[in-house]
Amino acid sequence: MAQQARAIRTRRVILESAAAVFAERGYERTTIGEILVRAGLTKGALYFHFASKEDLALGVLAAQMLDEPLTPQPVKLQELVDQGFLLAHRLQCDPLVRASVALALDSGAMGIDRAAPFRAWIDQVSEVLMAAKAQGELLVHVNVTDTAELFSGAFAGIQTMSQILCDRNDLTHRVLVLLRHVMPTICTPAVLIRLEMTESRARQLAVEYDANRLRHEENLTESARA
Amino acid sequence: MAQQARAIRTRRVILESAAAVFAERGYERTTIGEILVRAGLTKGALYFHFASKEDLALGVLAAQMLDEPLTPQPVKLQELVDQGFLLAHRLQCDPLVRASVALALDSGAMGIDRAAPFRAWIDQVSEVLMAAKAQGELLVHVNVTDTAELFSGAFAGIQTMSQILCDRNDLTHRVLVLLRHVMPTICTPAVLIRLEMTESRARQLAVEYDANRLRHEENLTESARA
Repeated sequence: MAQQARAIRTRRVILESAAAVFAERGYERTTIGEILVRAGLTKGALYFHFASKEDLALGVLAAQMLDEPLTPQPVKLQELVDQGFLLAHRLQCDPLVRASVALALDSGAMGIDRAAPFRAWIDQVSEVLMAAKAQGELLVHVNVTDTAELFSGAFAGIQTMSQILCDRNDLTHRVLVLLRHVMPTICTPAVLIRLEMTESRARQLAVEYDANRLRHEENLTESARA
Repeated sequence: MAQQARAIRTRRVILESAAAVFAERGYERTTIGEILVRAGLTKGALYFHFASKEDLALGVLAAQMLDEPLTPQPVKLQELVDQGFLLAHRLQCDPLVRASVALALDSGAMGIDRAAPFRAWIDQVSEVLMAAKAQGELLVHVNVTDTAELFSGAFAGIQTMSQILCDRNDLTHRVLVLLRHVMPTICTPAVLIRLEMTESRARQLAVEYDANRLRHEENLTESARA
């Protein structure tokens, strides 16, 4: 157990170091040597977890997906809203998530499959939309694929713009603006009035997420000591 | 006149060469020497038009803005629709416009002000929205800045996704999806039913744009010969 906890922490240190170097130098110019120096680890320790630079990039890319699913909501579209708020928060606070999205959008990252993260985002949104459709929450004309791709592409662009204009300080507001512009055209009025699309909902989710994550880290530290 | 026409053509050749090299090597690693080789010009000819690599990047960035304004429309929001269709077409066909947008979104382009192109897009959209508002086309709750920023950011992300997933082949469709999801929440029903948001409108605009541009090139060639 202690060994497993230590391995999880080492893996996280490697990914955070890789993320930092990718962010500074871009994918192409990053070397494994630089990541080793940053992580303060030996080659052996790194290669135990990751076989190559590409493998490291895939690890960083995967970091944007949530480890734990969101709390299920009676209105499925609320889960879509919550996902948006939470990703905004994680982009603001977690360097690994930031690096993950930057890597997916880095036009210089020739060696890696940049379509994969977009497909993963689209799948995640589609899944919620399908569930919402099954519950009769969507207007009949909605094409789930089109709408899922719109949300994914629009979110990617909005977070890039927010990053460039103000270091993502207004990202929650921009996500709210996106949701308020799109939700009324995809869901029924009866669902629309039940959706909680507010800054305070976003703040509450962020606080819960941070508390969960802290608890998780503490558990890992305890286990590693044991 | 002949001299002026030749200067305009030389400037275009330089910008296209710079765009091609930026696209291949990224902004940071591009050297003026490489651009000279690509353009087949002397240092003197290039420095007559552009003082530095940064200046070249600004020239490329400016290329995404339309040289000539769109045909004014009785319904102002139709101009916004048309702008979206036309930018999609130019991104599909004009390497210079493609390079311009890539440069604005290139996280490795540290030396240049990447906020400027976003501000220019936002201003352009705001201007049309303000005119639409003055004509009573917008619903009363619309915040012009929020909506202009949403369109700019969402468009940037949608074109990135389209590029990564299918080399921008479906960009017109994606722009249509964006418009159809957002227009109903910002404009009055009476305006909404008058908006032409169709693939055939997009095709017609593309044909007209190409014809105009060809005529413009031919005039330049004539003048340069005179």
